[in-house]
Amino acid sequence: MDVSPNAIPDVVVRRLPIYARSLAYLAEEGVRSVSSQELGERIGVTAAQIRKDLSYFGEFGKQGIGYNVEYLLGHIRRILGLNEAWPVVLVGAGHLGRAIARYEGFRSRGIDIVGVFDADPTKIGMELGKLRVQPNTDLPAMIRQQHIRLAIVAVPAHLAQEVVDGLVENGVQGILNYAPVVVQVPEGVWVRHIDPVALLHSMTYYLAREEERAHTG
Amino acid sequence: MDVSPNAIPDVVVRRLPIYARSLAYLAEEGVRSVSSQELGERIGVTAAQIRKDLSYFGEFGKQGIGYNVEYLLGHIRRILGLNEAWPVVLVGAGHLGRAIARYEGFRSRGIDIVGVFDADPTKIGMELGKLRVQPNTDLPAMIRQQHIRLAIVAVPAHLAQEVVDGLVENGVQGILNYAPVVVQVPEGVWVRHIDPVALLHSMTYYLAREEERAHTG
Repeated sequence: MDVSPNAIPDVVVRRLPIYARSLAYLAEEGVRSVSSQELGERIGVTAAQIRKDLSYFGEFGKQGIGYNVEYLLGHIRRILGLNEAWPVVLVGAGHLGRAIARYEGFRSRGIDIVGVFDADPTKIGMELGKLRVQPNTDLPAMIRQQHIRLAIVAVPAHLAQEVVDGLVENGVQGILNYAPVVVQVPEGVWVRHIDPVALLHSMTYYLAREEERAHTG
Repeated sequence: MDVSPNAIPDVVVRRLPIYARSLAYLAEEGVRSVSSQELGERIGVTAAQIRKDLSYFGEFGKQGIGYNVEYLLGHIRRILGLNEAWPVVLVGAGHLGRAIARYEGFRSRGIDIVGVFDADPTKIGMELGKLRVQPNTDLPAMIRQQHIRLAIVAVPAHLAQEVVDGLVENGVQGILNYAPVVVQVPEGVWVRHIDPVALLHSMTYYLAREEERAHTG
């Protein structure tokens, strides 16, 4: 079966890592098989959704038996390209960048931050776990020599586009952007955004409405 | 017009803060009016999508003139309940929690972190900007006395559910969860997740496929 990657809706692709994460916890707990119902409850989606999502990639579950946790986890990891670790560069060594560099949850899930870069001379040389902050000018050489295709951007909003342009120019094709601004990239480059304030605002919407109802209802 | 909040799709609610963020940049730049086309290009959605999203909340643009930036921004901010600042508690003062506490982008966008809490005695009293880390045991009193409805959770995965249960029990109704685990909450409580690794994995999916094609194509 030769499924074009474009045939899988992006919303499904975004859920696969959550399935993998949950299956990894189950495997750690020694659980050998799980029904789509149980998995769905853990993840907060319906059993039907899980079955539909996974059906894009083949036949996994057996009626009445459920999914073999290790097998399904292994398969999803391969689908996600996680059979080997991905080297990632991190740009920005401010408070957030430093916290990201020190976060231990990356390596265990196949993400290997191999370099931290900043333009600020006062940050160069700073030790962050096993890494040492390098000047931005060293970034192109590292990306090219180590064939790095993923980057994390944790710079102020007004610098983000320039940083992203430089990354893309040197071959980076996937960017996790923490700067609170939408960056423009050419076709074939992927960007995911993390904006905690926007997520909080999408909740204040509901809370404000509730308050209104409480006062008028 | 009495639109029930449930009538607006959550995906639209999630885009509104991005519109607000982009309009705020435009306002700062002194831009007075913007077309749905221009706004869409900045945000990475189509003009039609923007017009459709905003139509849930009334009539804004004028044919051929575009949106008045200040007016639309003010309206979206009211829709999101951002006419006043929201007090928020932060649980977890590890590397990530400390970076969150120090992040200056919250207050300017109506999110006011009023307390940082941790269970670890070695972290209590640590100064983070204007805040000082308090013991988790002080959390219920602060939530109740200050009527706090929003919380940010930055604790290890195995502690997240317990922390969330405590928050909800004391009246928190919206949770931004940085722990890499889906937490269960009762009806009427909102949770948004931030999992940088899952977002990176949703990009390795595409990159791995491209590599495959490059090798076989």
